[in-house]
Amino acid sequence: MSMSSIDEDTNENKFKILIATDNHIGYLETDPVRGQDSFLAFEEILKIAKMQQVDFILLGGDLFHANRPSRPCLHRTMRMLRNYCFGDRESQVWIASDQSENFGDIAQANYLDENLNISMPVFSIHGNHDDPSGVGNLSALNLLSVAGMVNYFGNSTSIQDVTIQPILMKKGTSKLALYGLGNIREERLHRQWRAGHVNFTRPEDDGTPDSWKNCFNMFVFHQNRARHGPTNHIPEEFLDEFLDLVVWGHEHECRIFPEHYEDFSITQPGSSVATSLCQGEAEPKHVGILTIEGGNYNLEKIRLKTVRPLQFTTVVLSRVESIEPSDKNSIRVYLEGVVESLIEKAKNEWDEQQEQDSGIEPCLEMPIPLVRIRVDYSDGYETFNPLRFGQRFIKRVANPNDMLKFQKTRTRPITDMTATELLNDLSTAVPERLDRLKVEDLVHELLKKDLFILPEEQLEEAVKIAVEKGDKTSINRFMDLVLLRTRDSITTLPDDIEDLTLDFIKRKSNEAKQNLSASYPSVIRDDAVRPTPIQRGNTNNDNNNNTFEINDSDSDEYTSSPTITPRATTAIRGRGRGRGATRGRGRGRGRGSDKRSASPTDLESTPSSQRRRVLPGR
Amino acid sequence: MSMSSIDEDTNENKFKILIATDNHIGYLETDPVRGQDSFLAFEEILKIAKMQQVDFILLGGDLFHANRPSRPCLHRTMRMLRNYCFGDRESQVWIASDQSENFGDIAQANYLDENLNISMPVFSIHGNHDDPSGVGNLSALNLLSVAGMVNYFGNSTSIQDVTIQPILMKKGTSKLALYGLGNIREERLHRQWRAGHVNFTRPEDDGTPDSWKNCFNMFVFHQNRARHGPTNHIPEEFLDEFLDLVVWGHEHECRIFPEHYEDFSITQPGSSVATSLCQGEAEPKHVGILTIEGGNYNLEKIRLKTVRPLQFTTVVLSRVESIEPSDKNSIRVYLEGVVESLIEKAKNEWDEQQEQDSGIEPCLEMPIPLVRIRVDYSDGYETFNPLRFGQRFIKRVANPNDMLKFQKTRTRPITDMTATELLNDLSTAVPERLDRLKVEDLVHELLKKDLFILPEEQLEEAVKIAVEKGDKTSINRFMDLVLLRTRDSITTLPDDIEDLTLDFIKRKSNEAKQNLSASYPSVIRDDAVRPTPIQRGNTNNDNNNNTFEINDSDSDEYTSSPTITPRATTAIRGRGRGRGATRGRGRGRGRGSDKRSASPTDLESTPSSQRRRVLPGR
Repeated sequence: MSMSSIDEDTNENKFKILIATDNHIGYLETDPVRGQDSFLAFEEILKIAKMQQVDFILLGGDLFHANRPSRPCLHRTMRMLRNYCFGDRESQVWIASDQSENFGDIAQANYLDENLNISMPVFSIHGNHDDPSGVGNLSALNLLSVAGMVNYFGNSTSIQDVTIQPILMKKGTSKLALYGLGNIREERLHRQWRAGHVNFTRPEDDGTPDSWKNCFNMFVFHQNRARHGPTNHIPEEFLDEFLDLVVWGHEHECRIFPEHYEDFSITQPGSSVATSLCQGEAEPKHVGILTIEGGNYNLEKIRLKTVRPLQFTTVVLSRVESIEPSDKNSIRVYLEGVVESLIEKAKNEWDEQQEQDSGIEPCLEMPIPLVRIRVDYSDGYETFNPLRFGQRFIKRVANPNDMLKFQKTRTRPITDMTATELLNDLSTAVPERLDRLKVEDLVHELLKKDLFILPEEQLEEAVKIAVEKGDKTSINRFMDLVLLRTRDSITTLPDDIEDLTLDFIKRKSNEAKQNLSASYPSVIRDDAVRPTPIQRGNTNNDNNNNTFEINDSDSDEYTSSPTITPRATTAIRGRGRGRGATRGRGRGRGRGSDKRSASPTDLESTPSSQRRRVLPGR
Repeated sequence: MSMSSIDEDTNENKFKILIATDNHIGYLETDPVRGQDSFLAFEEILKIAKMQQVDFILLGGDLFHANRPSRPCLHRTMRMLRNYCFGDRESQVWIASDQSENFGDIAQANYLDENLNISMPVFSIHGNHDDPSGVGNLSALNLLSVAGMVNYFGNSTSIQDVTIQPILMKKGTSKLALYGLGNIREERLHRQWRAGHVNFTRPEDDGTPDSWKNCFNMFVFHQNRARHGPTNHIPEEFLDEFLDLVVWGHEHECRIFPEHYEDFSITQPGSSVATSLCQGEAEPKHVGILTIEGGNYNLEKIRLKTVRPLQFTTVVLSRVESIEPSDKNSIRVYLEGVVESLIEKAKNEWDEQQEQDSGIEPCLEMPIPLVRIRVDYSDGYETFNPLRFGQRFIKRVANPNDMLKFQKTRTRPITDMTATELLNDLSTAVPERLDRLKVEDLVHELLKKDLFILPEEQLEEAVKIAVEKGDKTSINRFMDLVLLRTRDSITTLPDDIEDLTLDFIKRKSNEAKQNLSASYPSVIRDDAVRPTPIQRGNTNNDNNNNTFEINDSDSDEYTSSPTITPRATTAIRGRGRGRGATRGRGRGRGRGSDKRSASPTDLESTPSSQRRRVLPGR
């Protein structure tokens, strides 16, 4: 009792925050072995937060794996939040900023709502998985928010200008400005940031002793940190120097121990469930207990103990002695041995951890481990069915069906392959490659020319939304827009068109626009900024360009504009995850060039890889 | 102030409850004209409840129109509930029953949860639209329940025995036992009820003055009241005589004024939004303010004022003078006149209503009305495109595209038509007819025999779940079950099968069952009641019948069993909605008879219509 009261005394000026990210709740939820993993990890995080009596939990996006979480997933998540976050405990954190700016239409943090009794508030931005989509532009987090379970912030309302308003928090004498930015499409944010259109609103310094001038500035966001191409990541240099600490979501490897850059530090908590079987995800998973007092902070990392172990290794068959390339059986037997040793290793590491915790925590039985072996079979080695190979390890390995991944050392990077080559190459079943396939590229290769009426990039975006977000209306809405644009083009035809027809077309066009306003908010925002007068006889097609922009995708004009000086790319880079080629030097996207029909050798020598954006794999 | 305190005094022993049902929130939510209707009506209901300071709101099912409400729909509903139902106001209603029995895993009414501040609790059962489905058997109401926004009750956990536990409520000296039963498939509930497997748990009479013996007994449920066939409705006679008042959901016509039967009364509040354009939905919409004191009740009806007017009429062209059957233009002009008169009528009725309310309520502008004309074109009258007809009434009628419904006087009822005839007859585009089409009938007609391995009824159920509930896994789960059953059949083969093979099959079969337990709870319940021992050499196929039963659909054996005496059907019938034939006399389903290939005259004279269940149209 006395200890706890001393504790509270020393804490009255100190924020205590649990930081975590990428919980991907619902990942593989129907898998009989792994279905519970994401739920258990999130529940463990809630338990830690409760035990640590943190002031609040800060999440860095991708709380949900699916943009439209299943009903059982949503229900169970809400159930957990109600169990752990509701209850008596007066918060000592006071919010000084305009909460309607911070939290949108809910306009109040849940723990400050007098109708809710919240013992432990959760603050979260959205990630790329649970981003707002569809009619009303809502995220699954909006449902948690209206239910009073999560304080959803950092949803930038403007696409033209990203202005980040902080939540100004005060605990005793400590002041924290918490900036948040939910995931924005990688290229778009990169370009806006480079063009100076990403702004952090600093609280005014009113000169009083109570001024926010010397507050602690923290920023949480959810973007690529690893460089997958020239514009689809955010280089650390982009970050404002006034920031003290950046919580980086989206990257799944746990690099939670703060890494220091010139003026600030970055903590990357990493995911709480492995959604891809690679080295980065094989590292132990942690969450952080961040304390902030005045201008100082401290971060203690806490290992998640329920997380299923993942063992990852690479085997280069040509380096294994005593195996003939044609001897399928020996290869199989050898790889079985590797699996056995990885299971053994997982067990040893688990026991070691249990020993360290003994006396503190009850002993936990190891969940069946995940195993992934990348098998390099270059130089003519035989392969076999990984599914049958896995049958022997059912109940000993959590992913028996995809333990082995056969790969050849590439003579050229995936990004240099044409879309058709990539499609043909899919026989080796590496799902990640599908990320590189773009509708646009397929159209180019198959038709050998651009489409005239259907813009490929927007078509791709619409297809992507339909597939990834399960939004069945996106393609219809795209078609409506194209129709609208085509109608607008017609209204700019010369005077000799019959008046009546023209009036009819104009009326239809306006009606279509009104209907769209309800279903496609981003379009309306664009329209609001740049109104589109319909002018008869105006052959200038600026008009078209404006109404046309569903997504401000990077166009050639923009990238090649002389007013934009690309800054040097990442100088300081941590342990990157090594995916994809990084050879680009910021060329335009090269659309319309004939490079894509060049021979493989040509492709080797010209970095046409820049033409393809690498989509985030997670 | 003094008036309100007097008011409270007189109310301290009196329950005050708002009753409403079938709000179908989200109905036509993307329609540019009618999209808001369901939301506005529900908000009006919440406003009335708040103004009336009711103790709680009681909903009779189908709060949502879609089994999986869209995200905007769910969000907006939660928003409204948070706005109207959260706040300060101490409830004087005390719950004496075991709340974990009443509310399942949430185990507590929201207004009794000390972490929530609820000014006006909502109690709801589910309807056939928002019934539990999919993995975890959850309803959209479970999401509102876990969010602390609705007290979801009446979800019977057993399929074998429907036991209805009341919520025992006490306010001052008044006692109310509130029984609820969410929608169950019509035929199943009918059969269970008839077989005595639907039981109301009465509170024990402990002889003390505080006993529940003389409580007021109210029952809310959601089933067909109108007779669509011999078994797919609940006759009023089924209802237990100890009940005082029955709140009947599902039927959309407002018959809220209590109708008295032998021992009890029925109030049928009706829907708050018209989902089918028929006479029943054209009646004014109301909600009820029900007060209960001791053993007495009173019901005051309150008209919903924001509801879009619906004008319905029938025109028999052959009875219209001065129109020639072949004169399309005159028919069109005549019908235009009918539409004009209906618009006029709607306006007059609206103004009349406004006049009555003047001084009490602010004047409301009439929403554009709905108009439906059933056009009987028997005797060779011409028809035309109703869509083009509607173009003249855009912005004057809310449903210009489907104002006219051309119908011929039937020489024989739809239910007597074969499935193929029905399919061919769909050219006149009467969507309701699709309700009569059954997978089973199609299979019979097209294959001329029953399926052997795939049970048609379960296949139909699986297809229905996939289509209506959007549950993509239902067909897979059905196939898994069939596989399971086939495997079980094999294990009962004679002894001379090789042991090893048999063991393998058994193991697989058990694995499949375990996986199913997670994904198909109803199966597991069946299994639990009737375990399925796998017996080698047992050629008795009772075994198969048991594992086989996904849904306890009405089998021929059951209906024709001599132990079941069908009770006389509905003696007292209110104003039925007159859909479908009602000529059946409880024959078996007649499967396997060759009646369906008989000539139309044969069909006229034999009620083979019993073979087809009529699915609820709403």
